[in-house]
Amino acid sequence: MSQMIILTEAQLRKIVGLDRDAVACIEEAFAALATKAVAMPPILRLDIPEHRGEVDVKTAYIPGIEGFAIKISPGFFDNPKIGLPSTNGMMVLLSTRTGLVQALLLDNGYLTDIRTAAAGAVAAKHLSREDASVAAIFGAGMQARLQLEALTLVRPIREARIWARDAAKAESTAAELAARLGFPVAAISDPGRAISGAHIVVTTTPSEAPIIKAGWLEPGQHLTAMGSDAEHKNEIDPTAIADAGLYVADSLKQARRLGELHHAIDAGLVAPDAVFAELGQIIAGRVPRRTSDDQITIADLTGTGIQDTAIATLAFARANAAKAGTTFES
Amino acid sequence: MSQMIILTEAQLRKIVGLDRDAVACIEEAFAALATKAVAMPPILRLDIPEHRGEVDVKTAYIPGIEGFAIKISPGFFDNPKIGLPSTNGMMVLLSTRTGLVQALLLDNGYLTDIRTAAAGAVAAKHLSREDASVAAIFGAGMQARLQLEALTLVRPIREARIWARDAAKAESTAAELAARLGFPVAAISDPGRAISGAHIVVTTTPSEAPIIKAGWLEPGQHLTAMGSDAEHKNEIDPTAIADAGLYVADSLKQARRLGELHHAIDAGLVAPDAVFAELGQIIAGRVPRRTSDDQITIADLTGTGIQDTAIATLAFARANAAKAGTTFES
Repeated sequence: MSQMIILTEAQLRKIVGLDRDAVACIEEAFAALATKAVAMPPILRLDIPEHRGEVDVKTAYIPGIEGFAIKISPGFFDNPKIGLPSTNGMMVLLSTRTGLVQALLLDNGYLTDIRTAAAGAVAAKHLSREDASVAAIFGAGMQARLQLEALTLVRPIREARIWARDAAKAESTAAELAARLGFPVAAISDPGRAISGAHIVVTTTPSEAPIIKAGWLEPGQHLTAMGSDAEHKNEIDPTAIADAGLYVADSLKQARRLGELHHAIDAGLVAPDAVFAELGQIIAGRVPRRTSDDQITIADLTGTGIQDTAIATLAFARANAAKAGTTFES
Repeated sequence: MSQMIILTEAQLRKIVGLDRDAVACIEEAFAALATKAVAMPPILRLDIPEHRGEVDVKTAYIPGIEGFAIKISPGFFDNPKIGLPSTNGMMVLLSTRTGLVQALLLDNGYLTDIRTAAAGAVAAKHLSREDASVAAIFGAGMQARLQLEALTLVRPIREARIWARDAAKAESTAAELAARLGFPVAAISDPGRAISGAHIVVTTTPSEAPIIKAGWLEPGQHLTAMGSDAEHKNEIDPTAIADAGLYVADSLKQARRLGELHHAIDAGLVAPDAVFAELGQIIAGRVPRRTSDDQITIADLTGTGIQDTAIATLAFARANAAKAGTTFES
């Protein structure tokens, strides 16, 4: 007989939010990736072309953390036609000592949203100028909203712009964010103008062709690309990757295969084996961060299993403290 | 909101057993592997050496089946020291149309035991002589017991022998099986003598050095090796693999890497790219089965994701019919 707790999305939303603790746990996980014997096997990927479906399974073991998550992330792109979200999913948290299931986190992708946004905050904290106050967000979905909120946890943001392909959606998202965050947020229909004068740019779109032109980037800007988590996705002009003063990947191995870096390699602008810093190495102080106020920095975030293990562990600790969830024996 | 059912090991034991339906569903899954556009990605494997732990995640999509399983199989080999089983695990069944979780099967490895035993029955049904009546089982654990029971579903077994490294365990398992199955089951301490005169031999041990010598095999015998599911496991003399009249893998790709075949390749007895039949091709009639009563046949079973999808789908159908399990919304 083994005992586990089951947490629903509603319960998880009550106990885990996008806050400083979430950012700190993701920051620690990245640092561990650079300093500890982390095991993060390649993503298991299953495609179901008949139903425009795909499933990714990610996991990572971080020494010193008592549990490790196995995350199941399905994306079924015909779901909206029948009124269902495209993406959902869950995490299973297992004990690193016994392999027993500790918790089933039926989050429908909520914890992924949080850990992804938290990684944006971590990247901005370690790469953007400390006085960065103007943010430009590309995309108007859930992750666009969360990325802006995440930036406010680490930088004194006082103005933001939203660009999205759907101008009406950009307007409504901007209005919603302005009301929630208490500073001006404008929808801007010209992407170049959205970037001009911004200190931090975050891209969150599912674009398959570059939205951000290399020439638009200005000295001192930090750009986080977090839409590119699959081979065919591409938000940033490959030249911008090649020309960046400091390019940083969450996982270099993954970015070479899935990230914006992959398109720069394909374009022949970057050597396939070129070595770049990883975010964890910057956090751990193993490689230099921004070396001048004028440097253009780019973080290429593809999403990693260590983030899942970190956020699942936080959720489990919070659930135990709050006595949340349903205990199940099997 | 999505709705799923949760089934415990106790509930699963009531609705799924080692019976003709279980064998039929595994047989169909193997046939599908040979005839349909099955997607079966490589196993995701995470190792946690600090705690002698490992986790395998398997999945497979079989066109025409409404669900696909993602199976999480941990093995933590220090667990027995603290009174826990080494292996446990669970399956998540997702809809092939929407990716939504349909069921959480908290089976602690029970369904794996059943689908593994059922594969042994399928191999014997398609490879052993139809009149095979004497079985020799190597090993005295759960899988040894199930493999003998599985053989009785497909062949007129009237006598069995049990060999195990631990002679006392062989005795008690033999006595238990004789009482349950109603025919003589003898514990035999000499492995060569256990094989002599047997029609079907099944190996179920975790051995890392060959137990079965090539010279022991007799004309007409069928051997199923099912202990070898990892690189370091090896039950059969590689010469026996190379010399078999008909060698069949569950998945040739996996057997080359994990099965008995892998040791024959390492020993230089078989070319790394040598092509052998797969069990599904035999079932589907795409390649010839046993061509004479004297042929020695060997099935090398490493365990496949299609078996997990098949048994999970059977469990889900049975649970729905029996209204078993707990409904959960998230």
